Amino acid sequence: MSPSQAGPQRFATVAVALGDRSYPIHIGSGLLAWLGGEIARHTKATRAAVVTAPAVGRRYGGKLLRSLREAGLTAGPISVRDSDAHKNLREVARLYDALLDFGADRATVVVALGGGTVGDLAGFAAATFLRGLPFVQVPTTLLAMVDASIGGKVGVNLPRGKNLVGAFHQPRLVGIDVDTLASLPLRQRAAGLSEVVKAGLLWDVSFFEQLERDAERVLRLEPEALLPSIERACAIKAEIVAEDERESGRRMLLNLGHTLAHAIESLSRYRGILHGEAVAMGMVFAARRSEALGLCPPGVAERVEALLRRLSLPTDLPRYPRRAYLSALRVDKKRREARIQFVALRAIGRAETVPLTPAEILPAGA
Amino acid sequence: MSPSQAGPQRFATVAVALGDRSYPIHIGSGLLAWLGGEIARHTKATRAAVVTAPAVGRRYGGKLLRSLREAGLTAGPISVRDSDAHKNLREVARLYDALLDFGADRATVVVALGGGTVGDLAGFAAATFLRGLPFVQVPTTLLAMVDASIGGKVGVNLPRGKNLVGAFHQPRLVGIDVDTLASLPLRQRAAGLSEVVKAGLLWDVSFFEQLERDAERVLRLEPEALLPSIERACAIKAEIVAEDERESGRRMLLNLGHTLAHAIESLSRYRGILHGEAVAMGMVFAARRSEALGLCPPGVAERVEALLRRLSLPTDLPRYPRRAYLSALRVDKKRREARIQFVALRAIGRAETVPLTPAEILPAGA
Repeated sequence: MSPSQAGPQRFATVAVALGDRSYPIHIGSGLLAWLGGEIARHTKATRAAVVTAPAVGRRYGGKLLRSLREAGLTAGPISVRDSDAHKNLREVARLYDALLDFGADRATVVVALGGGTVGDLAGFAAATFLRGLPFVQVPTTLLAMVDASIGGKVGVNLPRGKNLVGAFHQPRLVGIDVDTLASLPLRQRAAGLSEVVKAGLLWDVSFFEQLERDAERVLRLEPEALLPSIERACAIKAEIVAEDERESGRRMLLNLGHTLAHAIESLSRYRGILHGEAVAMGMVFAARRSEALGLCPPGVAERVEALLRRLSLPTDLPRYPRRAYLSALRVDKKRREARIQFVALRAIGRAETVPLTPAEILPAGA
Repeated sequence: MSPSQAGPQRFATVAVALGDRSYPIHIGSGLLAWLGGEIARHTKATRAAVVTAPAVGRRYGGKLLRSLREAGLTAGPISVRDSDAHKNLREVARLYDALLDFGADRATVVVALGGGTVGDLAGFAAATFLRGLPFVQVPTTLLAMVDASIGGKVGVNLPRGKNLVGAFHQPRLVGIDVDTLASLPLRQRAAGLSEVVKAGLLWDVSFFEQLERDAERVLRLEPEALLPSIERACAIKAEIVAEDERESGRRMLLNLGHTLAHAIESLSRYRGILHGEAVAMGMVFAARRSEALGLCPPGVAERVEALLRRLSLPTDLPRYPRRAYLSALRVDKKRREARIQFVALRAIGRAETVPLTPAEILPAGA
């Protein structure tokens, strides 16, 4: 059997149940060489534009393109810049141009191969080119695997704010090949695990406990610990997205740790800090505030902090003045004391939103 | 009773049945002053950004803004340029900026007040700003009333082609105030009637016959003839859209006359010819070709031509060389003889798609 006909060696599938927009998340080792046929089957496309950043393209593009071609598709690569600074309308316009050069028509699937930025850019182009092309996510960072690639949120930044423009455009398929993690630097790996911990912390105490048992093995990418962790994190995200596709309720819980994370990222001007690291600090903060507000029993913050530290993640907020944090939290400058849906913890494995003003989130002296 | 509480004097409602995206089309005289409450009721919005072009805004913006404010919304105008040359990503970026200035949040409804270009631009911004805001169409040209405002197609041009970027973003409500037609020049009015004729021609022989009886009265905007015609044209479009929201089948019938119309527009570089005029020429062409191909009985083309002439619409193709038409029809340059889904007539009131090559659409000597 050729590699494209053989299935991957290890394999799990999580379903995202969204009615006629439902799709599978395949998680496994050796998946890239087999994915072409799956993409053909799920999209009925005749052409595939593989959108990827140069470094990722060099490493994994060939294998994916080969697999698509073996499945009978006309496949070609499109290169984008994958830094957040280039996640903007100008880069989308370049992407539209490249899709025209490729001869993209309605029977063309857009395949995002890369991290979250590539998925956001390619997904937004797919959502809008010719009023919507089928889309497939092939995430190659841990963060994108367990978070960004699932749920259909795609979009770009405006000069005045992050992710202000976008769409809900569900992929037809998410293909996670864990082999691509081997080239991911340790720091990126740890940052991705921050969102894995988040999934357990907000939804599933037994998964959190499993991570407490396996932290170091997951960080070392030992398959027996890694695969079930990715699978469970994906399943939690899939479950929440299926309940609330457009983020009008429960999906907001996924913002656990993110209120402070966004403030930290904005104050640091997105330099020197990874998103997952900011989320780690934000989660510890949320746990501490939840304890202080009497929303959850004492000891929760300590456990959260201990686990994140074992994953070599930072847990203390950077030392900016309180007024700087407050101003970063006040997204709506016109309504200074507007309440924010702050995600608080009731226990390990249980979160809820609490409407708080910035000053209540960050009281003086806290 | 204040004007906002009183209903409009004449009033009809057509429903667009799209499951949880269903919406009403209200058609009447004196509608603008009453629309604010309807918009509030259908969107639950607290803010309304009324996107409009300067001339239309001066004429009708005040009335609509007042009605929105009387309904309790914070309402403000956003001005866009409404020529097709400005229906591009740059104008959308300006619109995003204006929405930020306005303080648009998820509880903000985007209201398009104007012709098709304003609806397309505002609709695309609404579809993508904050991943989608509620949207209302208030068309002020006949063309937009019976065609562009219904069905959720929104989008912009790229330098390399028309409407290459967009979305399907259904409005929550379409409000057609026929009083706004009074300021529409006769030529624009006739061009709009071209799409009204199209609705009868492709779908409903008795509506076509009604237009044959009332042509001049409709052109003079006599309410007793105009309102039922707009209502029936909207109902036909609504019915077809409800059957095929994403244009994978039946909705293609709405392209009757458009294959040649697009070629004419492209050859004339969109100068000196209105879309509805090009569609009129394209419909007569389609009727003649359908007769020549033996798809419909003789005499159909003559009736189509006679009705369009009474509406002071052009019916003969501009004299470009055949090879120029062929090249304009060959959208896909790589596959010169790829077939086009040409909309042919089987009779007055019945259309179907026929896959034809450009050379079959325009045979030598025809």
